Amino acid sequence: MSAETPIRFGIVGCAEIARKVSRAITRAPNATLYAVGSRSIDKATAFAKANNFPPTAKIYGSYDAVLDDPDVDAVYVPLPTSLHIKWAVLAAQKKKHILLEKPVAVNVAEFDKIAEACESNGVQIMDGTMWMHHPRTAKMSEFLSDANRFGQLRTIHTVFTFPSDPEFLKNDIRVKPDLDAHGALGDAGWYCIRAILWANNYELPKTVIALRGPVLNEAGVILSCGASLHWEDGKVATFHCSFLSSLTMDITAVGTKGTLHVDGFVIPHEEKEAAFSAASESGFDEFVTCWVPPPSRHIVTTDLPQEVLMVREFARLVGAIKNGAKPEKKWPARSRKTQIILDAVKASIAKGFESIDIAY
Amino acid sequence: MSAETPIRFGIVGCAEIARKVSRAITRAPNATLYAVGSRSIDKATAFAKANNFPPTAKIYGSYDAVLDDPDVDAVYVPLPTSLHIKWAVLAAQKKKHILLEKPVAVNVAEFDKIAEACESNGVQIMDGTMWMHHPRTAKMSEFLSDANRFGQLRTIHTVFTFPSDPEFLKNDIRVKPDLDAHGALGDAGWYCIRAILWANNYELPKTVIALRGPVLNEAGVILSCGASLHWEDGKVATFHCSFLSSLTMDITAVGTKGTLHVDGFVIPHEEKEAAFSAASESGFDEFVTCWVPPPSRHIVTTDLPQEVLMVREFARLVGAIKNGAKPEKKWPARSRKTQIILDAVKASIAKGFESIDIAY
Repeated sequence: MSAETPIRFGIVGCAEIARKVSRAITRAPNATLYAVGSRSIDKATAFAKANNFPPTAKIYGSYDAVLDDPDVDAVYVPLPTSLHIKWAVLAAQKKKHILLEKPVAVNVAEFDKIAEACESNGVQIMDGTMWMHHPRTAKMSEFLSDANRFGQLRTIHTVFTFPSDPEFLKNDIRVKPDLDAHGALGDAGWYCIRAILWANNYELPKTVIALRGPVLNEAGVILSCGASLHWEDGKVATFHCSFLSSLTMDITAVGTKGTLHVDGFVIPHEEKEAAFSAASESGFDEFVTCWVPPPSRHIVTTDLPQEVLMVREFARLVGAIKNGAKPEKKWPARSRKTQIILDAVKASIAKGFESIDIAY
Repeated sequence: MSAETPIRFGIVGCAEIARKVSRAITRAPNATLYAVGSRSIDKATAFAKANNFPPTAKIYGSYDAVLDDPDVDAVYVPLPTSLHIKWAVLAAQKKKHILLEKPVAVNVAEFDKIAEACESNGVQIMDGTMWMHHPRTAKMSEFLSDANRFGQLRTIHTVFTFPSDPEFLKNDIRVKPDLDAHGALGDAGWYCIRAILWANNYELPKTVIALRGPVLNEAGVILSCGASLHWEDGKVATFHCSFLSSLTMDITAVGTKGTLHVDGFVIPHEEKEAAFSAASESGFDEFVTCWVPPPSRHIVTTDLPQEVLMVREFARLVGAIKNGAKPEKKWPARSRKTQIILDAVKASIAKGFESIDIAY
């Protein structure tokens, strides 16, 4: 793909998160905003205007119209989770590549149908987990996979919490069982689970057990929960996600030789630089009063924020497919594994905190 | 107590940790090394020489001799946990104030006997949890108790792990069931549990459940384990402790309005300054690409390291008692609560990860 033929995106649904991704599409060098569809043409018009769509952009009063536009290469789907199965399968059938918001589906069986539709139609699917694309993540991966500096992962704890106001807790789609049935687990826990899998080279655990004390709303949607994940070799992971606590996005990963800390892993504290801390073979001085060596702090800078890098990578894959390449399978594989764990946590809560075996 | 009458310490046993505490006693303005006792007079002599005891210090070939010396005000007891009940009770009966290494006892019933002996003999007891005395801890407590900046604690995760070599795993007293039966739970988990209680204003949880997958040695001593703690109001804490992972000492505490992070909470990275990070009412910018405000980093300096501050505080209390004050009960109360949770984690592991109710 040359720089002269940017990938043309259609936005399917005008969710709040679509503003951020539309901006990212505008900023990505190989992508362009081409169309937007909403059930309301007025809403689509207002969205296009507010989000700097080019004057030539197509404004549609339905999702179908976006999928039927032959010039749309790819769609970004920020619809409520329960609608993913319908619209992602339809998009694949219309040969549109799909950038799909997380959680990718109501359950892994539905995601498998989406992934099958993508595979049989030769289209790329990638979920909207932006932090995967930050150069800090690549730097941290280097550290975690370094046998000398980090060794073997032994335990990892991840947290993603944010506070929500009464309006959110009453009306946001993320607390509605018919829209985003997974609540905080799907919205925030998704990232915690992904981080755990990422640090494990995407090796699934053997068992998953929800922690007691999840908070559910009256409709049974999760507002706060946690779980422990257990691997055959004794590795243990824990996570906590919530709509009811202060903004926190943390990873602490402990290996046999090193330790990784990152704060703000989902969204860095600053757009252009992001930090993490790494300790490697630290010990103490003679009287055990200080660390030798202390952990080191690493700053990773980026000209483009992670959401732009995500769009750029997705558009690069789409461009390659247009030139004859196959879709990159690692992205749906990661989505699927994340969804498997998400389903297991829900099942464990439903079964009174039973241990859930993960089928491979 | 005036500065002219420092508290005279007797060291009961020459464990490795006694070197650090002897140095702290030397450096504390209101304490002095007065005696040391070992089962071997040669070992006591060598210890006194290596640790800058004053030439006038008494060198004894037994623990009893230290307790029988009428000029010893207080003893520091770094003996293996299983010996605490015998020597701490005896020390109390001989009217010696006691600085006792952790874990304080084999179980809470034994600790209660020690605490009763201290109470009936009017002596102070304090455990050797040094980080309680660092000025950083006081600063972090201020943040955690600030209703505007931190709000109500919702979840906390603590980690203390360090790597050990084959020699340690074979011969250290901390892996011997007849000496320190709690292994990593007693040695490292003690701090994790204390930090959780500290952040909860020492309010005990309702239930404790060990995480699956603890690592035990052939004798059944814990080399690695974790647990979750649950309060009536839905608060959840998790921790992980291990002899088998890279040096890590972490607290992540999440409240309704703020988040606290500290790395190196047990022993700061540097002797004279220690950091923590605090986020308060953080949110995002318009496009959700950075934090507003980002967490702030706080540095707390101290002229005296935390172990000296511990000795100074203990000696201050002893001096006050010599002048007619009562022993400070908060210290044995904290030791006792920490031991209660430690016992519950062990019980949960023994019972196949059952939920253990905490009796108040």
